[in-house]
Amino acid sequence: MQYYEDIEVGDTQEFGEYHVTKDEIIEFAEQYDPQPFHVDEEAAGDSAFGELVASGWHTAAMCMRLLVDGPLEDRASMGASGVDDLRWKQPVRPGDTLSIRTEIIDKQVSESDPNRGYVDSRLEGITQDGDVVISWIAHGMIARRNPGGD
Amino acid sequence: MQYYEDIEVGDTQEFGEYHVTKDEIIEFAEQYDPQPFHVDEEAAGDSAFGELVASGWHTAAMCMRLLVDGPLEDRASMGASGVDDLRWKQPVRPGDTLSIRTEIIDKQVSESDPNRGYVDSRLEGITQDGDVVISWIAHGMIARRNPGGD
Repeated sequence: MQYYEDIEVGDTQEFGEYHVTKDEIIEFAEQYDPQPFHVDEEAAGDSAFGELVASGWHTAAMCMRLLVDGPLEDRASMGASGVDDLRWKQPVRPGDTLSIRTEIIDKQVSESDPNRGYVDSRLEGITQDGDVVISWIAHGMIARRNPGGD
Repeated sequence: MQYYEDIEVGDTQEFGEYHVTKDEIIEFAEQYDPQPFHVDEEAAGDSAFGELVASGWHTAAMCMRLLVDGPLEDRASMGASGVDDLRWKQPVRPGDTLSIRTEIIDKQVSESDPNRGYVDSRLEGITQDGDVVISWIAHGMIARRNPGGD
């Protein structure tokens, strides 16, 4: 298991292949983001996007799945308090395959809770063509191996 | 249809009732965020949360659904470029009912595209008890009724 003490600023990882299908784009959007350009191919053709594209929240969720299966798999994660600078840079389309790239950009022990540390990390979601489609900076919490240590 | 010209800084709206179920929390998390505290009641009991809680991305997605059904319903939305200050303030639990509160905090015409304007809005997701569980600031794009006008 990977604890706060095992994480270093500058650590990077690349992970995963998430195959994006038309059916999943529509299924997610019908439940959570039923705007025409996410649920209706014909309406999407007439939209600013010109074609069916994934909800931005769906793109975030797919990248989260890659995070859980990859970088977070053996990490003593205690969740996250939030995300800054979430950007949808390019549309995600049926047939795309997403991977993620992560980098630890800051870490800090908690002043109020000796059992936890804070880790900031940058995520980029990337297509098979190398295009960055989404990015964010996450404020994660992680258990300490040695509570109260440095 | 509501265009850029129809939106005013300071406009606020409250909307919706989204009933959060255990089945939906688990279904979402099994697909997108299968950490123990989101998919397994017993493991969740031993976690920092002490009980099963919704994935933060699921909470965001439920609020997006309320946005689409409410404030965005008649708006000539062209999507969003991103979100800042996304914060998960309290856990969302089975049995909670979410509503949203939105406020327009800034608007600006595009300098490069006479057909679109930019609208920044703050969102809060709120439980039946009035607790704010999530908040963010969205950078939305919206069509102009009078392209090139002020």
